[in-house]
Order: sequence, then structure tokens, then C-alpha cells
Amino acid sequence: MKKTEIPDIIISRLPVYLRALRHMEGQHKQTTSSQELGAVVGLSAAQIRKDLSQFGEFGKQGTGYNIAFLIDKLREILKVDQVWDVVLIGMGDMGHALARYQGFKDRGFRVAMVFDNDPSKVGTQVEHFTVQDMKEIVTAIRGSGIKVAMLCVPAASAQEVTNLLLDAGIQAILNYAPISLSVPTGIHVQYLDPSIGLQRMTYYLD
Amino acid sequence: MKKTEIPDIIISRLPVYLRALRHMEGQHKQTTSSQELGAVVGLSAAQIRKDLSQFGEFGKQGTGYNIAFLIDKLREILKVDQVWDVVLIGMGDMGHALARYQGFKDRGFRVAMVFDNDPSKVGTQVEHFTVQDMKEIVTAIRGSGIKVAMLCVPAASAQEVTNLLLDAGIQAILNYAPISLSVPTGIHVQYLDPSIGLQRMTYYLD
Repeated sequence: MKKTEIPDIIISRLPVYLRALRHMEGQHKQTTSSQELGAVVGLSAAQIRKDLSQFGEFGKQGTGYNIAFLIDKLREILKVDQVWDVVLIGMGDMGHALARYQGFKDRGFRVAMVFDNDPSKVGTQVEHFTVQDMKEIVTAIRGSGIKVAMLCVPAASAQEVTNLLLDAGIQAILNYAPISLSVPTGIHVQYLDPSIGLQRMTYYLD
Repeated sequence: MKKTEIPDIIISRLPVYLRALRHMEGQHKQTTSSQELGAVVGLSAAQIRKDLSQFGEFGKQGTGYNIAFLIDKLREILKVDQVWDVVLIGMGDMGHALARYQGFKDRGFRVAMVFDNDPSKVGTQVEHFTVQDMKEIVTAIRGSGIKVAMLCVPAASAQEVTNLLLDAGIQAILNYAPISLSVPTGIHVQYLDPSIGLQRMTYYLD
């Protein structure tokens, strides 16, 4: 299966399917249908079937999808059947919230290191992490082999820190700073900007 | 212009264009091109032109887009040329971070009320907000006419709180709880789930 053959828009939906299936599993359901899954995630049954068919035959006509099996397959496709260490940069409110966030558990991620450039924060404890000095970030990440970062620094320093992360070998950045980052081809950035999420919806409001 | 004629995928990109244009404006640029804007947001110039052409003629062949003009138009289209009051529910780490978040300023939103169900939090101050009791939420929101909510409660209570919000007249929910919400047609939900953002990217990593 060539990566380039599957549109990113489909990849973007797989984590949403996975979350919905995990929720069904938590409710002790064994099987689901493309209709039911579609209703949960707000897509048509046809879209669900089309998306999943990109990766193989996961359901049976008449009996639908085995939830546990489909979860395993999606975790495998998304490579979250392993645990990725993640570096967290910026120990403001959002950084604190992410350091304590319980929602990474069983979803493929673990915060491994936290950084800040504020001397009053460096060396302090946040949860079970000791805040490390930004000056050490390139060396620390290079030595660890970590590829994934969450960026919670102010907009004004986000690009500068991003450049350090790229230097250090980071390949995927979840960006909370309200700014578009410039990165070379092959580096992945996702934005978690609450204003963007809200602005997508106000278009539809009166 | 009929709403139904414009695909949601295009609407979803407009806030990203707006953020990039605001950033350019902050750098005292006057004009941009579909090439330049595309490079910033990671899309082709053709895609930018196609998306914007849905809403009218915003650029001139040869001279490109006037940044201030395009910002005004996008703010108008997305209805963020006004300020939307937003209700914030759940005063855990993420709720605190959002109550203090500076990134809503000038982007069309203002946190107007905050709620929690924990008696030890109700009545306390978070920033300049007094935390209100969840028991009062339906009455308080109905009386205010607020249509937009940010949901930062645990996954286990997210659907229950959502039902209250719908009762109260909320039409758009930015959901931080790691769970898919069931809402009727016409109600808008956007998810800010860091695991989803990360899982979208690990697919591409080795």
C-alpha cells in the first residue's frame, strides 16, 4: 500500500472513527455498522465504507464490523499500536493542562519531556516531569529519538522554537500557538487553535 | 449565496487563511498572492484561488490580493466581524487555560460565563469570571442568548452536559472532551482532541 495513494482527508477521519469505536467498545458493544458509525461521527454510511475500503475488507455484508477487530486495524494503520514519546514545549496554562492530560492514555502517546525558557520554571516539577531548559532542547531531543512535539509557546516565539525542533529531528508538531508555522515538505503540523474551531462554526450561525 | 452550495471542507479552510493573512498584516505586508498564501498554509495556489472564488472576486490578475480587504471579507463571511459570547464549561486545567487564553482577542470571541459542577469551585474567581453552578446553566444561557460553548468536562459527563447545552439553545460546541457527541442535525460540533491531532500525523511517520 503506497502512502501517496490515500488522500489525507481520509487519514484525517480515521482517528475520529477510532475514537467512536473505542467509545462503543466501552459500552460493551461487539459489532457496529457503517450506518451506526456514520451517525456517531456525522458522515454517511457510504463515506465510512469508502474510507475503510481503502485499507482492506473490514466488514461483512449483513453482519457489519467487529468492533475489536476494526479498532486493532485502525490502531495499526495509524501506528498507535505503539506508544510514541512526545516532547511538550511551553509550560503556560495550556502546557500544564497537556502535561496532566489523561486523554493520551491508551491512545498511543506519552509525554516524555517538558521544556520552558523561563528561568523561574526550569527545574520545577509539573506532574512527574522536571521542566527542562529550552537551551538544552536540541541535544535532549536528538539523544532521545523523539519525533513528535506539542508546541504551547506564545505565537511570537513559535517559529523560532519550531526551527529548533526541526534541527533536533522532530517530524510531527501539534501546534497550540495561534500562528501558521513554516516547515519543509515531509514535516507534519496539526493546529489546535480554538479560534479556528469556533470560526468554522460561526459561519453557519445566524 | 446559498450556504448549502459551499462545501464544509472549504469553510474549514477559511479560518486558516484568515489567520495567515492576519499574520502577514502584522508583518506590515500590503498584498499577497495565491502562491504565497498557499505556501504559508500548505495548499496549492490553485486551491486557494478556487476556495476564494466561491465567495466572489477578491484578487486581481497580476497584483494579487489586498490583505486588509481580504481579511475584512473573510471576517464577514465567517461572521467574526462581530464578537460572539462563549460559555465555558468545566474548570479543570483545560478550562482554566481557555479562561485565560489571549488568542480569542480580535478573532471574534469572548468568554462570557464559566461553569463547573464542583461545589469547591462554584463561586470562586478564575480570571475575572465567577465560576457559576452547573445547576443554573440552562437558565443562565437561555437568558443570555449565547449560542456558542466550549466544553472541557470529562468524557463521562460530556454527553449529559451537551444535552443541557442544547436545551439552553446552544448551536455550536467546541468539544475538548475525548468523546464523540451526539447532536441533532443543525447543531455544530468541532473537536479539539490532542490525541486525534497526533494520530493524524503518526500515520506518516516511520
